[in-house]
Amino acid sequence: MTISTIGIIGAGNLGTRIGLQAALSGYKVNVYDNQEHSLKNSLPAMKKLLAKLSRAELIKEDEGQKALDNISFTLDLKEALKNTDLLSESVTEDPDIKTEVWREIGQLAPAHTIFTTNTSYLLPSQFAEISGRPEKFCAFHFHDVFHSRVVDIMPHPKTDQALISMLEEVGRQLNQIPILVKKEHSGYIFNTLLIAWIDAAGRLLTGEIAEVEAIDKSWMINFNMPAGPFGILDNVGLDTAWHITSSRRNPASRAFATLLKTYVDQGKLGAKTGEGFYKYPNPRYKSPDFLH
Amino acid sequence: MTISTIGIIGAGNLGTRIGLQAALSGYKVNVYDNQEHSLKNSLPAMKKLLAKLSRAELIKEDEGQKALDNISFTLDLKEALKNTDLLSESVTEDPDIKTEVWREIGQLAPAHTIFTTNTSYLLPSQFAEISGRPEKFCAFHFHDVFHSRVVDIMPHPKTDQALISMLEEVGRQLNQIPILVKKEHSGYIFNTLLIAWIDAAGRLLTGEIAEVEAIDKSWMINFNMPAGPFGILDNVGLDTAWHITSSRRNPASRAFATLLKTYVDQGKLGAKTGEGFYKYPNPRYKSPDFLH
Repeated sequence: MTISTIGIIGAGNLGTRIGLQAALSGYKVNVYDNQEHSLKNSLPAMKKLLAKLSRAELIKEDEGQKALDNISFTLDLKEALKNTDLLSESVTEDPDIKTEVWREIGQLAPAHTIFTTNTSYLLPSQFAEISGRPEKFCAFHFHDVFHSRVVDIMPHPKTDQALISMLEEVGRQLNQIPILVKKEHSGYIFNTLLIAWIDAAGRLLTGEIAEVEAIDKSWMINFNMPAGPFGILDNVGLDTAWHITSSRRNPASRAFATLLKTYVDQGKLGAKTGEGFYKYPNPRYKSPDFLH
Repeated sequence: MTISTIGIIGAGNLGTRIGLQAALSGYKVNVYDNQEHSLKNSLPAMKKLLAKLSRAELIKEDEGQKALDNISFTLDLKEALKNTDLLSESVTEDPDIKTEVWREIGQLAPAHTIFTTNTSYLLPSQFAEISGRPEKFCAFHFHDVFHSRVVDIMPHPKTDQALISMLEEVGRQLNQIPILVKKEHSGYIFNTLLIAWIDAAGRLLTGEIAEVEAIDKSWMINFNMPAGPFGILDNVGLDTAWHITSSRRNPASRAFATLLKTYVDQGKLGAKTGEGFYKYPNPRYKSPDFLH
């Protein structure tokens, strides 16, 4: 089957980015959100992204306008689903909300439409049955779309095998590198590795084994990396980091979550607020004398 | 106190490198080993390293010969300890061997000599008492000396605090970046982070969540890194990786250790034997089309 129209369910940051890339790749795109303000913010966000891509000479000037011409925005789910061949859902990361959305979609979508969820930590099997078409349901998880061009394809046990290779093809059309996660796993691959690494860094800090800068230096020098775990956490955002660590069960992670909470409570969320483990705009770890 | 003469105990790969750097930094160096063949291999290894450093224009031609003139080699421990101000011990990573070596050194070394161990996974407190001078005993752990210029300084509870800043200064003299590990911790900082990260990668593989290449790609793209966990393991050597993982207790690590053993048993030790997770000399992950 040919994919011509892609439906974006949830017009937040990632939904907006996926929708824009889909239009740039030549798909017709319907963007849906049930919140008027989210939907209103989506088009200006796309225009900003297009300006950036254009400055970086990643697109030609007329490509941007052409892409926008292919996108429609609607608050009406039924309207959004009309003629869609593939849906990409990026609504709030809450099992109850996602369950409700997939129940509704299952009732309204055309029979041939493929269902994908962009969930970060939940599993496709949590929503596959309620959607009414588990065999056409799969996780299709974008990392950032433009900067980190990874899309994870993660089937659940009832996903039709043919859907996997089709999503790999769509992923490539969307200018992404498709990565197959063969079995359901919360956090896919990258977040699994990242969390294990950051947990270990957190344990060294809360166990008073070493200071923030010593830990970052050790990683940066040995791997010739531009940042260590705490520099990266400042970029991820300490609120997000706290959100992730606080759900972990082992005592060392919980100790780190408690430490992160003291930063969050002080409004120190990392680079975006001017302070986290480092002070911005010129964090110590980026100083030329840091590794001396 | 001034450090003029450094004693190297154990003339293996790392002892040889530390001794050479010490001589290049202007110290007088005594290199000791109780194995004649190890001691015999040390000087040629130094000459090879000097040739490399010279080709990379990191030293001037006459500096190499000057350094070698400052180094003496001996099979006589008493001779090696004469006039030493600081000892760097890199003997086999076996608690019994290290205990015996430190007992002997404690009896023969000048009263003012500072004792340091280059152990990778053992703790300084394991040998501090037997050396007879726990307050002058500290871990001083080199990663590679020339390529990764990190030296960890890890005191045990009885280490004299003044020794720490002195070792930081000696570390800088030795062209290293000193990193303080405030409390004893097996694996220091870098190996703690590295092992957590590799454990997570191993769990994804043995749990059949994803394939080697998918795991490496995910890390490489997201962090713009030249290698992922399995590419790095191939470089570390699967024998070394197996040695480290097999000592870990959790079931997932043990499953990965079992998998690593199947590679080791087939002689697939990574880049050095031509095959590990990838085939060499042109492993897939270095191919220009790997990230597409």
